Amino acid sequence: MKTLRFKLALLVAAGVGCFAAQAQRANDEPLTIRSQGSFFVGGEKKPLPAPPPGAAFGGGEITVNQMYVQYQIPMRGDRHAPVVMVHGCCLSSKTWETTPDGRMGWDEYFVRKDRSVYLADQVSRARSGFDATVIGAVKNGSQPPSALPNIIAASHQVAWTVFRFGPSYGTPFPDGQFPIEAADELYKQMIPDLNALLPTPNPTWTNMAALAKQLNGAVLMGHSESGFFPEQAALIDASGIRGMISIEQPCPADLTDAQVATLAKIPTLMVFGDHLGDVAGGIVNWQTAHDTCLALVDKMRAAGGDAQMMHLPKLGLKGNSHMLMQDKNSLQVADLVIEWIDEHVERS
Amino acid sequence: MKTLRFKLALLVAAGVGCFAAQAQRANDEPLTIRSQGSFFVGGEKKPLPAPPPGAAFGGGEITVNQMYVQYQIPMRGDRHAPVVMVHGCCLSSKTWETTPDGRMGWDEYFVRKDRSVYLADQVSRARSGFDATVIGAVKNGSQPPSALPNIIAASHQVAWTVFRFGPSYGTPFPDGQFPIEAADELYKQMIPDLNALLPTPNPTWTNMAALAKQLNGAVLMGHSESGFFPEQAALIDASGIRGMISIEQPCPADLTDAQVATLAKIPTLMVFGDHLGDVAGGIVNWQTAHDTCLALVDKMRAAGGDAQMMHLPKLGLKGNSHMLMQDKNSLQVADLVIEWIDEHVERS
Repeated sequence: MKTLRFKLALLVAAGVGCFAAQAQRANDEPLTIRSQGSFFVGGEKKPLPAPPPGAAFGGGEITVNQMYVQYQIPMRGDRHAPVVMVHGCCLSSKTWETTPDGRMGWDEYFVRKDRSVYLADQVSRARSGFDATVIGAVKNGSQPPSALPNIIAASHQVAWTVFRFGPSYGTPFPDGQFPIEAADELYKQMIPDLNALLPTPNPTWTNMAALAKQLNGAVLMGHSESGFFPEQAALIDASGIRGMISIEQPCPADLTDAQVATLAKIPTLMVFGDHLGDVAGGIVNWQTAHDTCLALVDKMRAAGGDAQMMHLPKLGLKGNSHMLMQDKNSLQVADLVIEWIDEHVERS
Repeated sequence: MKTLRFKLALLVAAGVGCFAAQAQRANDEPLTIRSQGSFFVGGEKKPLPAPPPGAAFGGGEITVNQMYVQYQIPMRGDRHAPVVMVHGCCLSSKTWETTPDGRMGWDEYFVRKDRSVYLADQVSRARSGFDATVIGAVKNGSQPPSALPNIIAASHQVAWTVFRFGPSYGTPFPDGQFPIEAADELYKQMIPDLNALLPTPNPTWTNMAALAKQLNGAVLMGHSESGFFPEQAALIDASGIRGMISIEQPCPADLTDAQVATLAKIPTLMVFGDHLGDVAGGIVNWQTAHDTCLALVDKMRAAGGDAQMMHLPKLGLKGNSHMLMQDKNSLQVADLVIEWIDEHVERS
């Protein structure tokens, strides 16, 4: 932490403008990668109900619970552990790509910092697809409307305060880091959340654990709804997980000592932005979320773990929103995360 | 066409093995790009119904009908018109990426051939999201179950024959080009199709036309469900469309002379694979689809257009499935498409 604080002080002294200049330069330079592509992790076959006579579709099997993963491996990717990034509620992997105001996302920035990056769409979201069987069953009358999932479609109004752009819809924080002039572009990223359809345990957790193993070791990163997914994956199978980065999520208070001991074996970073208690009411109390995670960090440390709470305002970074990977100082935050990885995570 | 036939004869003489070797080499070589990222085209705000008292979500506005686009610009991308690729039914942009058996997809291959590539998830699919309002309304009783959309979730059994892997489920064509041992990986790409939710005209058409304009000219490529989307986009606004590539779709027979004249101003390529009439029954008769498109090609030519039907077996490429961009000879097909672009499409 001392190293981080010191470097940050230097950077603040040099002027924040240098970050913008660096980001711009990086964006202008060509990018050479060793390879790229996409694949699926997990997935199982499920029989469909028999179709009505004469139906064109229906019957047979479909595949469900698969997780779509898109990756890029930089030329020097073997120097560092790969990083798996998983998005939050009502969002897709777009979270980590080009920011709403058109700057480089964490996906490319980490690749330019010699990390292999794997973007996973949560199971039941985006390119991972979802199990639509129950919707068809309600339409054809074989199940009641109450069987439909609670689909979360967050409105702009909800996002403004939950994502902490400002204290109330339309009013930004004066020092807010989110590029609020591009909020309409963020809203386009917000897509229906069908996680209510998922079985227990959430297949995304199982698939994240499997992916980490498949990669012979990886850092798992989650955000918001998925913020605690790295830990959930570790509680299923920790063998491939070299580090856990949990960004802005509530942490459970009811973990057993055995569970805490399992988590404590893996270097863990929790990251929170600013204005945690400065939005009225709302769906999530971020100050409470922070406090529950700080309590867990303390428990993991007491169990001998290498766990750390990075509350950005305490490091001098003010005004960060819940969408800190899209904030105006997003690459500055990325640098802190990368530095943490380098200081705490073994490559394999 | 003479050029294509001649080169193909040379290649066949040299042995098909050389293609696999080329593809492998290309895959092994680093890739340098000028830039990459993602953004949205289109999208409008829609008010949500007022929430029940005390509800955490609901009320306010959401954004619908936006189209997610992911792109890569190669170093020499300014030499050629950009190519916009749009996937078919029950699929996402994964269609164009790494094949089910792990080979390079058309997305990267076109980039390596100095084309800027834009992958669009259809509106109401994958990272573009969909309008879930009606599902919530049925769940809370304000609309009847019959208001639910007809969601298409194609089974493995349906895919086998519709995608022409073989004459009946489990039996591949002896000369089939689809990597049938990896069929389970294809099934993971198949996700629920919610196009029944869309207004008229389909916002994907409008967004494709807008994207072509935004790019100062682009080739639009569609496949299957989206095969005729380039033409639909052109009928809305042809000003940005430099070429249209329609892969394996039915063509309408009821276009007006004015519509045919509009389409005839744009170089057009229609592509069909093999075994069009060799699957029993099924949802789509591909031989009929081919014939309707051949009829349209003739009409466009009669109107002075540069339109062409590329029926692969006539060029000596046997056994291609409906998923020809994933077939074992996919890069050979890509070469034919790229050659057509170079011979028929002006850069801007």
